[in-house]
Amino acid sequence: MSKDRLVVIGGDAAGMSAASQARRQRSDLEIIAFERTPHTSYAACGIPYYVGDLIKAPDQLVARAPEVFREKQNIDARVNHEVIEIDLDTRRVKVINLDNSTESWEPFDKLLIATGASPIVPAVPGKDAAGIYTISSLESGLRCREALDREKPSKAVVIGGGYIGVEMAEALLLRGCEVTMIEMAPQVMPTLDRDMAEIVSQKMIGDGVVLALNEPLTGFDVDGDGRVRAVVTSDRTFETDFTILSIGIRPESGLAADCGITLGDRNAIRINERMETGIEGVWSAGDCAESKHLISGKPFWVALGTVANKHGRVAGINIAGGEAVFPGVVGTAITKFNDLEIARTGLQQREIEKLGMASVSAVIDSKTRARYYPDSAPIKVKLHAEKGNGKLLGAQITGGSGSGKRIDTAAVALHAGMTIGEIIDLDLSYAPPFSPVWDPVQISARVLLSKL
Amino acid sequence: MSKDRLVVIGGDAAGMSAASQARRQRSDLEIIAFERTPHTSYAACGIPYYVGDLIKAPDQLVARAPEVFREKQNIDARVNHEVIEIDLDTRRVKVINLDNSTESWEPFDKLLIATGASPIVPAVPGKDAAGIYTISSLESGLRCREALDREKPSKAVVIGGGYIGVEMAEALLLRGCEVTMIEMAPQVMPTLDRDMAEIVSQKMIGDGVVLALNEPLTGFDVDGDGRVRAVVTSDRTFETDFTILSIGIRPESGLAADCGITLGDRNAIRINERMETGIEGVWSAGDCAESKHLISGKPFWVALGTVANKHGRVAGINIAGGEAVFPGVVGTAITKFNDLEIARTGLQQREIEKLGMASVSAVIDSKTRARYYPDSAPIKVKLHAEKGNGKLLGAQITGGSGSGKRIDTAAVALHAGMTIGEIIDLDLSYAPPFSPVWDPVQISARVLLSKL
Repeated sequence: MSKDRLVVIGGDAAGMSAASQARRQRSDLEIIAFERTPHTSYAACGIPYYVGDLIKAPDQLVARAPEVFREKQNIDARVNHEVIEIDLDTRRVKVINLDNSTESWEPFDKLLIATGASPIVPAVPGKDAAGIYTISSLESGLRCREALDREKPSKAVVIGGGYIGVEMAEALLLRGCEVTMIEMAPQVMPTLDRDMAEIVSQKMIGDGVVLALNEPLTGFDVDGDGRVRAVVTSDRTFETDFTILSIGIRPESGLAADCGITLGDRNAIRINERMETGIEGVWSAGDCAESKHLISGKPFWVALGTVANKHGRVAGINIAGGEAVFPGVVGTAITKFNDLEIARTGLQQREIEKLGMASVSAVIDSKTRARYYPDSAPIKVKLHAEKGNGKLLGAQITGGSGSGKRIDTAAVALHAGMTIGEIIDLDLSYAPPFSPVWDPVQISARVLLSKL
Repeated sequence: MSKDRLVVIGGDAAGMSAASQARRQRSDLEIIAFERTPHTSYAACGIPYYVGDLIKAPDQLVARAPEVFREKQNIDARVNHEVIEIDLDTRRVKVINLDNSTESWEPFDKLLIATGASPIVPAVPGKDAAGIYTISSLESGLRCREALDREKPSKAVVIGGGYIGVEMAEALLLRGCEVTMIEMAPQVMPTLDRDMAEIVSQKMIGDGVVLALNEPLTGFDVDGDGRVRAVVTSDRTFETDFTILSIGIRPESGLAADCGITLGDRNAIRINERMETGIEGVWSAGDCAESKHLISGKPFWVALGTVANKHGRVAGINIAGGEAVFPGVVGTAITKFNDLEIARTGLQQREIEKLGMASVSAVIDSKTRARYYPDSAPIKVKLHAEKGNGKLLGAQITGGSGSGKRIDTAAVALHAGMTIGEIIDLDLSYAPPFSPVWDPVQISARVLLSKL
């Protein structure tokens, strides 16, 4: 056995970023990556757009296939291989080759756990019926789209109003379905404050989605063939031809927990800034691992492609003997529903209250371009700041084309610990096709400053 | 005479922002604003789009008319009134009412000089001929558009390839003209590095503009009726039906200089962070006044609507007895030519060299959205960083829809003094309709980090 063998568990964004980065730093390292699905390095975030037929071929979602890793980077990427046990004492992992069901033990010197996250399936009657789809791996996306293409359903129900739910509702509308969304909370998009989420709800309703808020899922009606025919909530029954279950995801940290690796926030794998677990020579990265929230200062679990890539980069450098740290996240996320862009960063009202901080907020309505410029669209910007020191705590934006990416201004300001006064002074870009003379983020800051 | 009479010279962005801000803070202040054109608070930056007929009515460019200032804010805004002298000893200004040519002296306790900037007209033969237009005030825009509507020229020449020149070239193409652009420098857009400006040149040529670089203007051929018929350069003669002269602007600082107020960079009025000139009770703001460049640390003259508004806000607060400072600018600017977005911030190569700093740069090509997402367009991001400490010094971006406003990420990072490593760690927003998983600004940072 080589003295330097890296085993990567999980062949998507975090795992393969780390493998690539480690290879770039050390050509002598032996690198094996086990991936239980047939795909490596795919863009899971693109799945709703593939389901919605905005993207035609699933190949487009694959950034790098296993054979490319083998041929171009000397990384032994083995798909359809599932790791089912980690033995830290003997430093090896137990792997099943899913193509022929054979098991083997594979030794490692260094181990990266990048097992991702998986959809939560609630323990309700009928949950295993045919016609219910969750979205996680590329494989799950392929299954969902194949079924849509084949069945051409007319009634679709989406259970859960988070990012994936909203994106899937858009996709199903694009595919001609009547769409109902069921959400147990009183709002969609739980990472937004209630008032900002209301903008999203109104848009969804306006674009034809039937929205059932405050209605927890209680089960599924299943027909004699084992196929779901209706979704049942606390209040009602909704007929369905096609059901998306997107009530949330959880980190795939079972393998790590089983061998005694410490878990943290929401059972994600606890890591330090260098992506090290508590165990010598064992790293973790991506959707299965924690980050630090730079505003709350607390451990924070977030499953996003950007974070997974950053985790992977830092893990790869450190695994290869380099020095890199990942300081943490500020909670930035973005999506859209049809032509409504939706973005957030930092802390929302609920998180601020939970931390016991005193804050002030402002919400403003402005335009994406100069008001007189063609296609200037409405934009709403909400900012939260800490009482006393005036530091930015969070931002939320909804609006037309050009709204969402403005969240980056707030995200960078959060990283820098800027106050609302400092945001007003920022030399942001302005020309009539791009912005009002005061950028909407600054308009919101001006209103907030007057309240502070 | 009241003990608290504010006189504002110049009724556009800076002057009227200051007047409004002062009014908000102090209801008892007497405020008079003199504006030599017929318009207050107009969006000069919108003029090219009005000329190009993207904006139909000039009223749309007026944010607030004089009567609104009078009625809603008790600000005596007098248009068609030109201040021709400032007497600091007796604290009064000499004003001509341009409607009836009467002169009067108006006393002030506090004075704000917000006289703006004016186009440079070179001393070449024929410069005063009919058919040559400069773009500055709304009035100048009205004249230009009236002439276009009336004359329907087929051949247009734009002299000068800066922001206004590029925007006017776009406008004239939209109006069906054959457009030639003449520029004495070897590149258009002098605030961009040569390589980035080349992207703009290629786009302009591709969209039908005849580009004559390295050709200084030497004069105009004028016909018997006093009308310009051709533009003459060092090399050639270009026939013209319609000519835009946009070789640059200069601060309108003559009034201030005449009464002994100190001028600074490029003859802009020298002010401190509170927008005070060296003279007690005399402020300056907007295109006639200096700013501080936060990256070079030096005085810096920039004439932009955003800066003018920020200047005006700070001046108004201080005039009313409040406390506000304007720390300075980082040199952010944005424009577009047809569907090519163009943005820059910080220092360009030339400025870095002039300051004697050692730097490294990187230019990358990426996409505005995930590469597989519909309408993902090319984007090019160039970053400059200081050798040694790795601090970001400047950024330039060109590309399709969604490119330009990304400059704000770099602008905020410059304000915060971030290093390239810190930019890689930024938690920027990502979803396939908005960005590749690494934002192009961060892709450029990653390449630059590997060179540092």
